Amino acid sequence: MSKASTKPPSGMRDFLPAELARRAHVIDVVRRVYGSYGFVPIETPTIENLSTLLGKYGDEGDQLLYRLLHRRDNLTRALAIEGVGEADLADQGLRYDLTVPLARVVANYDLPKYFKRYQIQPVWRADRPGRGRFREFYQCDVDITGTTSAIAEAEVCAAVAEVLHQLGFAEFEIRLNHREVLRAMIRASAIDAALEGSALVAIDKLDKIGPEGVRGELAERGIAPESAERLLAFVAADPDAEPLPALADLRGRLADERGQAALDELSALIELCAGTPAAAHLRFAPDLARGLSYYTGAIFEIAVPDLASSLGGGGRYDDLVGMFGKKKVPAVGFSLGLERILVVMEERGMFPPLALGPELLLCWLDAAPAAVLAVAAKLRAQGVRVEVFPEKAKLGKQLGYADTPGVKAPYAGILGREEIDAAMITLKNLASGAQVRVPVAEAGALIATWREG
Amino acid sequence: MSKASTKPPSGMRDFLPAELARRAHVIDVVRRVYGSYGFVPIETPTIENLSTLLGKYGDEGDQLLYRLLHRRDNLTRALAIEGVGEADLADQGLRYDLTVPLARVVANYDLPKYFKRYQIQPVWRADRPGRGRFREFYQCDVDITGTTSAIAEAEVCAAVAEVLHQLGFAEFEIRLNHREVLRAMIRASAIDAALEGSALVAIDKLDKIGPEGVRGELAERGIAPESAERLLAFVAADPDAEPLPALADLRGRLADERGQAALDELSALIELCAGTPAAAHLRFAPDLARGLSYYTGAIFEIAVPDLASSLGGGGRYDDLVGMFGKKKVPAVGFSLGLERILVVMEERGMFPPLALGPELLLCWLDAAPAAVLAVAAKLRAQGVRVEVFPEKAKLGKQLGYADTPGVKAPYAGILGREEIDAAMITLKNLASGAQVRVPVAEAGALIATWREG
Repeated sequence: MSKASTKPPSGMRDFLPAELARRAHVIDVVRRVYGSYGFVPIETPTIENLSTLLGKYGDEGDQLLYRLLHRRDNLTRALAIEGVGEADLADQGLRYDLTVPLARVVANYDLPKYFKRYQIQPVWRADRPGRGRFREFYQCDVDITGTTSAIAEAEVCAAVAEVLHQLGFAEFEIRLNHREVLRAMIRASAIDAALEGSALVAIDKLDKIGPEGVRGELAERGIAPESAERLLAFVAADPDAEPLPALADLRGRLADERGQAALDELSALIELCAGTPAAAHLRFAPDLARGLSYYTGAIFEIAVPDLASSLGGGGRYDDLVGMFGKKKVPAVGFSLGLERILVVMEERGMFPPLALGPELLLCWLDAAPAAVLAVAAKLRAQGVRVEVFPEKAKLGKQLGYADTPGVKAPYAGILGREEIDAAMITLKNLASGAQVRVPVAEAGALIATWREG
Repeated sequence: MSKASTKPPSGMRDFLPAELARRAHVIDVVRRVYGSYGFVPIETPTIENLSTLLGKYGDEGDQLLYRLLHRRDNLTRALAIEGVGEADLADQGLRYDLTVPLARVVANYDLPKYFKRYQIQPVWRADRPGRGRFREFYQCDVDITGTTSAIAEAEVCAAVAEVLHQLGFAEFEIRLNHREVLRAMIRASAIDAALEGSALVAIDKLDKIGPEGVRGELAERGIAPESAERLLAFVAADPDAEPLPALADLRGRLADERGQAALDELSALIELCAGTPAAAHLRFAPDLARGLSYYTGAIFEIAVPDLASSLGGGGRYDDLVGMFGKKKVPAVGFSLGLERILVVMEERGMFPPLALGPELLLCWLDAAPAAVLAVAAKLRAQGVRVEVFPEKAKLGKQLGYADTPGVKAPYAGILGREEIDAAMITLKNLASGAQVRVPVAEAGALIATWREG
């Protein structure tokens, strides 16, 4: 038998401490901000029944589902079926997103009428792994169910803007559009309703491939040149335009009642947000479609300068959350791309110093180990993160260990019999070289001054 | 097609906000305490190769593994195999514990020599679900690899004791034994080495079924009555005895050199812990075996009064972590039973008040919604967790919503046009009935005094 690989499976990742500290930092900010908006967390199981999952993500999604093989008698029975296939061999699979579980939870429990929930958990997709694309990755969703009020749109946009502020993003935009604006532009361009989805896929690429590229795509998709030009004229927008004038401009050019009503909704939303953290970041983006057919109203997407892909998006989707229940449940939400936020913050050096591992390595010479551990307990009670060098060794070796990758303790404590007898400790600031002997009871306070300065 | 069930699959759980807040509280304490001991977190993927998992948990474990069904061509190829079976249909499965992934990680990366890691993640076992037994549950492991020093044992015991203290447990015991003490007692009882494992399973039940029950079990397992009596005499211990005298007593009665050396190790460990949070909790438990064959030295288990099952356990296991690598990696660790800790803390009312959901519901009458959202932003910036009532409604309905299960906001803010014009807010303490109108800029400070009592 060949030795098993020690790497994680393809598309999967081990998170070592430094990376995990960065992930925890982002997740903590998200939790704190969403909590301050009155959102509450839920978690749902990794494993769901396939009857819950299948048919919710389109054919492609169904094919990307991880299915759990039947066991024992169930497996034996399945394998006895003439022409046994995938559907016979599994009836459970792994969570594919956080929206279908939300819909299941809303149908199953007696929740508040306006359920403001966030959920930060991994999902699994058996996709082809690639650079920055994983088969296990976190989603980070925030949604308000139970109301069609635009206050819900404003609250999710404000909460997301506050998250990005607190993570250190300053220049981002929340690009806004509306499903009914898109539809109205299609109608006003005399494009057949059957080609709506196809046309929107092309339009959505405007910021990546430019008008010339979109023109070509629209032609390929069977849209007449005249219609294509009209549609391109509608979606051509000055990216730096203030949103209210941009909306008013399109309203004047788009003689379609439902489209005008949707533009009015977006104007109202922008006015609603005026006093919130979202205000400075809202932009009208008539080309934004996000390719998702389930949006029924406003559509959002976060854009950051010099980044082709988005940090997240969302919108109103009034027909989805009720799918497992008896009644319609309106909903609006935002999904942050946690993995992408992490990559951008890493590349741009946006992480603050993160507490990780010991800040003090406790080294010991001729002191009794029990006395060393007693000092460690006292230092920890003073709020210092302490690792005790576990073996008898020369001081140089112990101090050298403090500088090892993965340890990197900034301070050392040195204990000999003399220190122990006097209830003292020699503290060494390994960066500055400063060395002081202080009473153990005062060590935490000294470390605190080093830590701060 | 019948409507899909909205319940989670059997053995799986949805965690709604209140329960999740309790879980987060426990996990936060664990993280903070382990961090203060210099432990660092890792996370490993949900999905592992079956070549990593199989054969590590015994035959029973292999049968409880969740396997992921092959997809597309791989599935077609597998189904074409004559007499296709389980092994053909899957080569990946779900994480079964956190120890095998640790071993894989230690073999795969260049980590510090003394790797002090903790890991808090769910694991999956296709076990028969039952009361308090789930198919997806969290494990919470803390381990030190790379040293045989007893300081490592002392550090994990101290860290676990500190976690339990900070969670509010006062009366717990850390029961201690040693693999070589168990072996020596078996030898000294003239029990065949081949029956060692079987005899230990019986002995491990002493605190549950008593000496009479163990006597019966030992007889059933083919152990001669005389041997059974000798073994029972060795393990009979006064549960309240101080550990050092108890160890000395057994040392006098157990004339077996390796056994005596192991007893000396335990005495040294207890002395090492004297100045640590573990000190008051250590007890010698000669009947403790924990049924796990992989322990090579000290064995630990946490016992809490009036609780039959343990809150966690661990020990030294020097032969396991190196299994994927080229060299032996000594290790010692502790696994806390997170799910059981949660149940006990819940039953015994040990949770502090946990921040959850909005503390203030912002109600509004004839105020413009945009102005209401601007006030919400100001209150949040003052540290208040605010939910905005999203729809136009009578004040009584809005205030009633604050008391809804799942919302339970203790305070309400009321905004009319008058308040908005004056930059004031009417705050209502819903428990006391107190109602005050204050400038919005001072609302956070007033809420803070209400919050504190």
